[in-house]
Formats: sequence, structure tokens, C-alpha cells
Amino acid sequence: MIEGVKQQKWWGWGEEGKAYSHHDKPKFAPFVKRIVGVDINVSKTSVPPFSSLDVPATQLTDELRTKLEGIVGATYAQTDDETRVVHAFGKGVRDLVRVRRGELGRVPDVVVYPGDEDEVVALVNAAVEDDFVLIPFGGGSNIVAATEAVPGEPRNVVVANLGRMKSLLEIDEISGMARIQAGVFGPDMEDQLQARGWTMGHQPDSFVWSTLGGWIATRSSGMQSDKYGDISDIVRGLRMVMPGQVLTLRPLPSTSSGPSVREMVLGSEGRLGIITEAWVQVHRIPEQRELQAYFFATYADGLKACEQIAASDANVILARVSDPLETQYIMANGKASGRVGKLANKAIQKLMERKGWDLDGICMSFVGFEGSANHVRYHKGLVSKIIKANNGMGVGKGPGSLYDQKKYDTPYIRDFMLDHGLVADVSETTTPWAHALEIHTNTVAAAHKALEERGVRGVVFCHLSHSYHSGACQYFTFAIADDSEDNLVSYDAVKRAIQQSFMDNHGTVSHHHGVGEEHSPWLDQDISPAGVHMQRTLFEGIDPGNNLNPGKIIHDGKPGISSNSADA
Amino acid sequence: MIEGVKQQKWWGWGEEGKAYSHHDKPKFAPFVKRIVGVDINVSKTSVPPFSSLDVPATQLTDELRTKLEGIVGATYAQTDDETRVVHAFGKGVRDLVRVRRGELGRVPDVVVYPGDEDEVVALVNAAVEDDFVLIPFGGGSNIVAATEAVPGEPRNVVVANLGRMKSLLEIDEISGMARIQAGVFGPDMEDQLQARGWTMGHQPDSFVWSTLGGWIATRSSGMQSDKYGDISDIVRGLRMVMPGQVLTLRPLPSTSSGPSVREMVLGSEGRLGIITEAWVQVHRIPEQRELQAYFFATYADGLKACEQIAASDANVILARVSDPLETQYIMANGKASGRVGKLANKAIQKLMERKGWDLDGICMSFVGFEGSANHVRYHKGLVSKIIKANNGMGVGKGPGSLYDQKKYDTPYIRDFMLDHGLVADVSETTTPWAHALEIHTNTVAAAHKALEERGVRGVVFCHLSHSYHSGACQYFTFAIADDSEDNLVSYDAVKRAIQQSFMDNHGTVSHHHGVGEEHSPWLDQDISPAGVHMQRTLFEGIDPGNNLNPGKIIHDGKPGISSNSADA
Repeated sequence: MIEGVKQQKWWGWGEEGKAYSHHDKPKFAPFVKRIVGVDINVSKTSVPPFSSLDVPATQLTDELRTKLEGIVGATYAQTDDETRVVHAFGKGVRDLVRVRRGELGRVPDVVVYPGDEDEVVALVNAAVEDDFVLIPFGGGSNIVAATEAVPGEPRNVVVANLGRMKSLLEIDEISGMARIQAGVFGPDMEDQLQARGWTMGHQPDSFVWSTLGGWIATRSSGMQSDKYGDISDIVRGLRMVMPGQVLTLRPLPSTSSGPSVREMVLGSEGRLGIITEAWVQVHRIPEQRELQAYFFATYADGLKACEQIAASDANVILARVSDPLETQYIMANGKASGRVGKLANKAIQKLMERKGWDLDGICMSFVGFEGSANHVRYHKGLVSKIIKANNGMGVGKGPGSLYDQKKYDTPYIRDFMLDHGLVADVSETTTPWAHALEIHTNTVAAAHKALEERGVRGVVFCHLSHSYHSGACQYFTFAIADDSEDNLVSYDAVKRAIQQSFMDNHGTVSHHHGVGEEHSPWLDQDISPAGVHMQRTLFEGIDPGNNLNPGKIIHDGKPGISSNSADA
Repeated sequence: MIEGVKQQKWWGWGEEGKAYSHHDKPKFAPFVKRIVGVDINVSKTSVPPFSSLDVPATQLTDELRTKLEGIVGATYAQTDDETRVVHAFGKGVRDLVRVRRGELGRVPDVVVYPGDEDEVVALVNAAVEDDFVLIPFGGGSNIVAATEAVPGEPRNVVVANLGRMKSLLEIDEISGMARIQAGVFGPDMEDQLQARGWTMGHQPDSFVWSTLGGWIATRSSGMQSDKYGDISDIVRGLRMVMPGQVLTLRPLPSTSSGPSVREMVLGSEGRLGIITEAWVQVHRIPEQRELQAYFFATYADGLKACEQIAASDANVILARVSDPLETQYIMANGKASGRVGKLANKAIQKLMERKGWDLDGICMSFVGFEGSANHVRYHKGLVSKIIKANNGMGVGKGPGSLYDQKKYDTPYIRDFMLDHGLVADVSETTTPWAHALEIHTNTVAAAHKALEERGVRGVVFCHLSHSYHSGACQYFTFAIADDSEDNLVSYDAVKRAIQQSFMDNHGTVSHHHGVGEEHSPWLDQDISPAGVHMQRTLFEGIDPGNNLNPGKIIHDGKPGISSNSADA
């Protein structure tokens, strides 16, 4: 590890020593038992010691080692096993399963930590001249095999960790823009901005363990995108090192200078070059911030309310609603309430029963507001009318505060689940509003069909997470009770069923997780063969030697999803 | 002409019979005389009869004629001189000057009017197979030589006018999206939408004479973009015919499927294919719409107010402010007031004098609001505070109503000016807010320096036209008093000075007029050589035979601006 560069566990999410625990959540174990038949009080697998892994030796040639050390310095060219394994994978559940099993694939030969753009330039040019593979790496939080070397890659594989390039370089306080280095992690960036009274407002689930460069390279979106926009809205200018040249896009609010080069870099996942810094939109920290919680009798009501909020005059920072099963999951995952809380919950339950609601069908929702006190009050009023018109019920600010505190902790649960024989991951999509309910119904059904065919139990639940004028993102979580050697076959079956359902129901392959290798097989269906042809034209033209993160977004041969899976 | 397909005058803007007149605007002639020394009561040039033009004969081969007639039908393959001349140019002032002089350049050999996408497919494939040039054509309103054949093009030049493909195909009323054919003109499209209670809200200055496909191909932006977005925000899906394939992008609110193919089509100006239809965002016609007029003591105050509105909680549909000279131009262009109007103007003038304002420095501003009555009232209140804080003065709804009625008529003035020896056109750019005032000051100065060097009089004025979180578009109008044979040399000098000033002052080459041939020389400076390389990679990869509107956005050899100009 390099001092000052954050690094995740080699075997799971986030920092060593931090883990999910259900011991203060008495309702959780019974919930899991009821839903998927697993007793989470009994561990089924555990993480092996790192020393038990059979890590392939580095294939780094002496010549290349000398060259790389000449560029970044010996300290910043690491070839130890743990560093290489940490940089071999993202954090998809397929990654977690394989690393625990010691199925390490094509582990990179060296991890370099460039300290400035000049070093990145030297690395990119060396990759072309000396024909090695160069893969950029931020927080390593991706779940689509976006930073993994192609199996059997015969060339040297060099990972460039941007973690030393993490400074807020300047703020244009008049234009509300900041110039920031690409390797900065979410919390560090917000600390630097907030110390000067600003915020970017970008809050992806991965926030703590992802970087600005990674957000740009994957077209990230944060929980507050209804106000702050997707990363594609937030980024106004950037620099990207390409073979033989540095792309320089100055910060501009909007332009009509031909096909958008900025939008070619967004989502390029390292295939066109390495992003070193960006100009991003920042905002003054708002006077007030408030998350209101609501309940709906049905998911359809909740979706309709979000659709109407998006079409209305109301300004919200976020509007989300969980389906019944996710609502039950959230409630089961709550800490034991005190006496007052229990009474309040009883009162709400009574009220719902009086309304004739089926308590198994209720859906929890959060809507967020920011601005002056007056602004928050005005827009809360507009939203309140829409909630009422859709038979919803407000329950105040309490649950929202709790959500705000815990919102980045969810990924830790996945490691806990894996310890107990549950393979869990997420898939998300957007559709027009007209297809929002239908894609939910059909995707849940498709996943269950796949589970049945595999003969295993499992669960799928979902929330609407981001709204737009024309539609919304729905975010599905699935968990499969399979502790067998073939659990990745089950994973593949369910994941495939979900992604194909997205295609069959007017959705896109991914709203904000990118393509990587995992989603690549659906790209033809998503953007049509002509769209894939345009992307391929760009990649092959800019990187004819296939040195820059090859095999991602588009690749020939077998779909990656099966080439990496247990049944390959 | 083809029945049902609108066509502009061969020699100027808009429809035959409609022209600008100053006879009911008593202050206009004295204003022009004072500013540029020209007496507009005396005509200097006039439009020659079409019959006096020496139109090059069509070079269409019999073989290609047979093929094209086989695709679209004989009626829809026109080779008469007037049709070919109308389709030879856009409506930049360079175009107007040349066509009046009979300098017709490479007039296309035939204009075809495909009736459906299948015919477009056949045309694009034929262009590649038979190696001819294919140029898509919408309203023909572009001012950047975006649809003009390359001088001396030896191959057959075929223009595809999309005007028959003009139907609203469907509205998804739940998602607020409509599927519309690309050849529809603005008014026809809005009529079809509004008949069903919807609007797209897109109002470029060219609205009456431009088409949906043209807006997409050039990255258009409308006056109400603060609410409705640029065309790049409005278009959610589309179809584009490419060599051998049809790109199909389904309507999606947002996606992370790699580099955005949608954003490659936007601004592609016919170089990647022909857009046949699009899914666009539409909105319910708002309950209320109100344009409020304000005055500021200085342009700096007006810019600061717009900047603060963009940063505030206020929702506006537009916020514009004219510099002092444009303000005087607008006031001079008003009709003679009745007695009440004169008294009101006197009262406002008195008030300004009491405030100590320099009446030569005052700036007129419009801010627009839409939504429920309550919403309009609330946001008007927020804006009102910002106006006051910047020493502004509200003058009510009157001027805004007038502006709304006349907003599409400005381009007719350019033909009138040309009759009187004034060469006039527009250039617009965006910068971050921090550079808004400086780019205005420096661009006006740069234009005047160029005028001085040419030894001619002229005028430059400007308004802020579109706001974004991080900056704004400023829209410059310039007029040069040069009735000599060399007036295009003067135009070039001023135009070059303005565009270079954009580059030197943190601006982009164009906010919404596109690149065409006219802005192409600045692209390297705008998006850096690496950005141009990415665009070139795409164009050459998709269209290796250079059949699709060649020479636009990027071209080799001499900069187009001089290759077409009088001094070439």
C-alpha cells in the first residue's frame, strides 16, 4: 500500500475492520429466514487467509520494470502479491466469489501510482511503444469487470492507480465550478470543497470508495441527481491523456462544436485514455436539507407519485420509493426501537389498517428538498399534494435522517451475505415512465423463473432511485441462496435474466454502473449494432494497438459474462 | 417546389413577399444613420431577377438520375435551376451576398425528397455504392456553410430535402415524449403537438424556417432553454441512416452504455448519416406564461443579475439582457407609441434620471416564467429580489408581449440591411460566468479594431441569451457599412476577429449554430487537436468514402472561411 492512497480489502468491500452486523437488528435474521430460508446465525464460508492464495507471479520484464520505475519512481511501482490482487478485480459479487476461492485470473504484473499528468503521459506513450496493457484504476468499486485484464492476456499488464492525484486545484467561485484531480475519493473531495463552502452534491452508493475519474469513466449518477444531475451534467471540462496527445476540454456551459468529445470521454472506461482532472459544477452548501418519508399502499401508487413529481413544478433533490419487499427489508434491518418509537410505529400501522392497506404491500418512500427555508417549505407543499393524490401518507423526517447516516453502508452487507451462502448483487436500468411498472413486474418474474430453473431460492427487490422528465431509474437488488461450488452459475442465470428483461421491457443495460465486460453482451440490443459500430470505430481508431483497457464495453469472441464464469 | 414542402426565397430569409420595413418605426433611420452613417431611406443594391443568374447546368449522369428516380419517384428528383440554387446555400450573410452576385459555387446537381426512411436508406447506400456526395437539408437556415458542397467537387452532388417527412408519429403521454419525423418545421411541429395539449418548448431564432433534424444535426438551442433544455437535453432517442445500417437509439431518460452514441449524432451535421426521426421531450402547455421586462443601469449589473438567477432557487424559462447598444437598437426599432405609451416612457426616463443612470448605458432585460399562477408568482418574487439587489427596475409585461410577437422576425432585417449596403450577421458563444463581462468587452473591441483596419464603419451589439449553472451564452450581432465589391473581405475580417476573441476569452466557437465550414478553422483551439482527432476518427471510420456531407466540421486544406470568400 502507498501512504495516502486508500485501498479496499482484497476480499471485499471497504476498509479492513468494518463489517455489517445484524446483532442489534433483531428482526433481520427472521426476515432472511422467511424470505430465502437461510439462517444467518450460522456462517457457511469464511474468508481464507491471504497467504493461502496461489497468486501467479508477476510477468513484468526487467526492461519494463526499469522503464516504469524511471517514470514514477521505484516506490510507486508495486509488484507485491496483495497490491496486485487488490487491483485485479472490482467489487461485483462474481469478483468476491472468485477472489475468496483463489480463482485470480490474469492478475496484473505491476501497479503504478503516477504523481502527476506528465507521468501519466509517459505511461500512456510507453504502453503504445512497448505494447503493454494499461488499465486505469480509481477506487476499484466497479461491479462490471471494468478494470479486469482479459483472461490469458499475453502482454504485460500494468494498472495505473490514480490515488496520488487527489487535489482540489481551484474553485471558480463566480461560475460555480471546481478543477479537481481525477484520483480523489468522494469523501476527500467533499472535505476539500466543503472547507471552502462548496459541494458537488454527487452521491453514488459507492461514494466512499470511488473516485472522480471513475465516475466520469463510467457515467456515474448519484442519489441526488434530480437536483445536481448525473456526472455527465456535472463535468464541464476535463483533461484526458491519449496516445501521443492530451485531450483538453476547457470548462464550458454548453457548446455546438460538432459531435460531443466530452460525451465520448464520459463512459469510455479507460479505452480512450486516462482522465487526469476535470472541471465540475459545484454549488454553495444549501441553507436547509430535509428528507421526508412517506408510505404508499402499493408500488404502483409510489411510482405514479414520483412520475407526477417529475412532471410538476416541484424541485426535489431526490424522490425514491421501495417496492414492498425492499420496504420489508429496510424495516427488518432497523435497530430495535425504544418504547416511544415502538408506540409511533404501532400508531402508523393502525392508521394503515384503518385505510384498508395490505401491510405486506406497503412501500416506503423518501423525497428530499434543499434550499432556503422558504424554498423547502414551498416545494414540500407541492410534493405533499401529489403524495396525497396518490393515497400516500407522510411519516416525517425521522426515517430520512437515519437513511442519510447509513446510505453508504449497504455494500458491506454483500460480504456478510456471502459468509452465509447468499450470493447478492445489484442491477439497475432506466425506462420511460410508461414502462416503469411493467419492467419492475417482468424483471422480478424473470429473475424468479431463473431461480426456479436453477432449483434455488432467492429474492429480488427494487426501488425507484433517480427521476427524469421522461422516466426513471429502478435499482434491483437480488440475492441467491446458493452455497454450492456452482453458485456463480446461479448468479449468471439470474443476472442474465434480469439484464435480458431490461432489454425486453424498454430499459437500458445500465443506468450508472457502466458496461465493462459484464454488460457488454447486451450492447447490441441496447444501442443497436450501428451504435456499437460507432463506439468500436472510435476505440480502434484511437487505440489501434488495443493497449488501453482492452476487452471492455466492446469485445470480440465469447461474451465476457460466461468467459469468466464458473461454467466456462 | 414540391407541394407541402416549405421553401425559402432563393435570395434571402423566409417566405416570398414578407420583408422588414422601417416605415412605421420613425426612430430607426436616425438610429442607423447615427451609428454607422448609412441612410436607410436610400437603397444601394437590389435583388437581381433569378433569370439573370448564370446557374451551372446539372452534372447529374443519366445513370444516377434513373437510379434516384427509382428510389424517390420522378416527381421527387428535381433538377430545375431555382430548386438547385435554393439548396446550394444556407442563410449566412456570405451566402446572401454571393447568391445576389450570382457567385453560385458548386450548385448541387439534383434535389431529392425522400418520403420515408426506406428511401433514405436506399439513398445513403447508393451514395456509397455509386460514390456521389449526399447532403441532408432541412430548412436551409444555417449560417455556417453547413450544407454547401465543397467547391469544385467532381462527384455528383445530391441534396436530400427531408421536408416530406414531417409527421408527429406518436405521443407517449405518460412519459412526456413524442416521436416525430426529422423533416418537420418548427411551427408545423408545434401545431401538431399543441393540438393534443403538448409543446416541445424549443424556440430557436430560426424556428419558423428550421427543422427537428436540423436542430439535432447542429446542436440547436432555443430561447427557452433555461427551462426546456438545449436540443441535446430534449432528444432522448432517434434513428439515423448510416452506410449499410440504421442506428436505432430507443427513448431513454439516461444511460451508462459507454461513450454516448446519442451525443455523437447530435452535432454531426450530416457527416455520419441522415437523421430520420427522434423521440423528444414534450411538456403539457403551461397554465401561465409571463415575460417580465426590466432595465439595468449597466450591462455588468444585468449580467450579474442573470448569474445570480442561475445560482438561485428561482426557476425561469429565460433570462436575457441586452447591452446598451442593442437596447438602443430595440428601442429604435419600436413602432411609434400612442400618447399613453409616450407618457409612460417619459415617466420611466424621469425615474432613471433621478437614479442618476446614464441613459446611453441602460440595458433592457427580459425574464420569463411558466407554470401555475402560484408558481409564477413565487418565482417572480425570487427574481424580483435579485433584480433589486443589482439596481434593476421592473417595467412590467408590455415589452415582453411585444418581444414574444416579433421574436422570429429578426432575420428579415438582414436582407433589408443588405439592400442598404450593410453586411450583417451574428456570432454567439458561451463562457463561464467569470468571463462573461470580459468576453463581451474584448469581443466588441476586437470587432472594432478589425473594422478600423478595414477602414469601414460598423456596429457590434450583444445580449445574454441562455443561462446555465456555470455560465451563459452571449449572442453578438454585427453590421458592417461596406457596399463595395470587397464587402465579404470586411465580413471575413470582423467575423474572424470575433471568433478569435471567443477563443482568446474562454469561449467556445459556437453555442448553437454549429461548425459547418465557417467555424471549422477554430475547432483545434476549441476542443484541442486531440478532440478534433477523435471526431475525425469517427467520421473517417463511418464514412471512409467521404460521401456524407464532406468538408464540414473538419476538413483538410485551406480554411473554408477564406476558400469561399471574395479574397480567395
